[in-house]
Amino acid sequence: MTGRPVIEATPGPPRTAVTRVAVAQVALRVGEPEANRAAAEAAITEAAGAGARLVVLPELVNSGYVFTGAEEARSLAEPADGPTVTGWERLAGDHDLVIVGGFCELAGGVLRNSQVMVDATGTRAVYRKAHLWHDERDVFIPGDAPPPVVDTALGRIGMMVCYDLEFPEWVRSAGLAGADLLAVSTNWPASPVPAGERPVLVAYAQIAAAANRMFVAVADRCADERGVSWVRGTSLIGPDGYPLAGPVLTDGPAVLTADCDLTRARDKATGPRNDVHRDRRTDLY
Amino acid sequence: MTGRPVIEATPGPPRTAVTRVAVAQVALRVGEPEANRAAAEAAITEAAGAGARLVVLPELVNSGYVFTGAEEARSLAEPADGPTVTGWERLAGDHDLVIVGGFCELAGGVLRNSQVMVDATGTRAVYRKAHLWHDERDVFIPGDAPPPVVDTALGRIGMMVCYDLEFPEWVRSAGLAGADLLAVSTNWPASPVPAGERPVLVAYAQIAAAANRMFVAVADRCADERGVSWVRGTSLIGPDGYPLAGPVLTDGPAVLTADCDLTRARDKATGPRNDVHRDRRTDLY
Repeated sequence: MTGRPVIEATPGPPRTAVTRVAVAQVALRVGEPEANRAAAEAAITEAAGAGARLVVLPELVNSGYVFTGAEEARSLAEPADGPTVTGWERLAGDHDLVIVGGFCELAGGVLRNSQVMVDATGTRAVYRKAHLWHDERDVFIPGDAPPPVVDTALGRIGMMVCYDLEFPEWVRSAGLAGADLLAVSTNWPASPVPAGERPVLVAYAQIAAAANRMFVAVADRCADERGVSWVRGTSLIGPDGYPLAGPVLTDGPAVLTADCDLTRARDKATGPRNDVHRDRRTDLY
Repeated sequence: MTGRPVIEATPGPPRTAVTRVAVAQVALRVGEPEANRAAAEAAITEAAGAGARLVVLPELVNSGYVFTGAEEARSLAEPADGPTVTGWERLAGDHDLVIVGGFCELAGGVLRNSQVMVDATGTRAVYRKAHLWHDERDVFIPGDAPPPVVDTALGRIGMMVCYDLEFPEWVRSAGLAGADLLAVSTNWPASPVPAGERPVLVAYAQIAAAANRMFVAVADRCADERGVSWVRGTSLIGPDGYPLAGPVLTDGPAVLTADCDLTRARDKATGPRNDVHRDRRTDLY
């Protein structure tokens, strides 16, 4: 249970060809961890009821995002065996799910903007966000380990948090490590979007998918918080870069599902003679 | 006049703050270089008449794209001091323009999918496409030099051809070399686009821009050729990743212009505490 990749040495094909994947847009409130855990549990239960086997949750589910400062964040943080993660382990066991979600972690005395993957066997990986946005720098220590790619019963699932997705180098590292699906937990603060345009952060998810021929599942949040609005960009992108579900873009909780043949991500071909990974000029970069 | 970057050692700010940039969608026909040169000249003249100082043209302007094989391509190729490039040099001098466009080059006995930048002083750089698509592999030798970034009278202009844009590593290299604007000459073959979606290749241009806070100017072509249709994705993207003009998406010639304050690309900040280049975790990748 560390931040390093835990992919198996000899990965096989996904054991289930088609997986119903859920991305959950959750209304979170800073400083209300019990309400937030309940909101996440409701989303997980809804996703399981809809037949999903993988559920992706937003960033910092337990705590909310817009802290008054490090002190407030610390008061809301919990260890990786705290009530949020153990609750998700219980739900994963109850419903035979893989759950990926973000939480405010207290680890070794420092705060981390963390993301956990759990399944019916317990915690599979903890990742610490490596690229910190804005005032997160006052609160969190960034992670130093690459995004894990975990060989689950559903296929190989990569992990990433919010601003990480804006660095193509980081996305590529997950793609090259074999991710069939990249699970992105996010709290995307809204910025102005020209009329008729899709928020550019959603396009980041699309290009992360297309450039690596993998699925990208983004769970954003909703419910304005201390003056910050959210993109509400919860979406599930296919390996060709087009949405299979979402983006939501409206301000309310939502659980979107789509059936994903994760084996499609094992084929990196974009045509009879091209391949997004093999065509890289590794002699030049 | 090589493929290497020719950026000056101590780059200053652009000498003109606001530049009217034109991207030209041109109807090309394989095997008709004189008609193609005339079509490009018409687009250049139209752009100059509209007040543009920079004109970006498609890939392989002289030759067209869908060759029967290497022999046909060779019959259409010309050196970097051939009629296509010398014609553009003349037009750049006549109208005080910077022109960037693609041409089928015969260089040292081999064929290159090349792109040239000319201004009133003559040729500034020749770039050879480094990532080859589909049957281009039967025709062209890929380039081995990084995309040039040329310090022009208008600002620092980077160069790239079509499939190159799908490799974020290559785009980043132009961004880090200081490109204020990346000029992309392309022949984007069309592939199915879900209803209501923008072609994903345009999203590649958007994310190239956003991830490096630079302008991206894409000149695509039109006119179906030997069964191949085109995205017709000619567009001009601002450093926030949103289009300033285009994408055209219709099958006809078009010259789009937008006024670009290229100095905006010198500021890589995305917020008071974030910067798309400085926030890279260069300790990790």
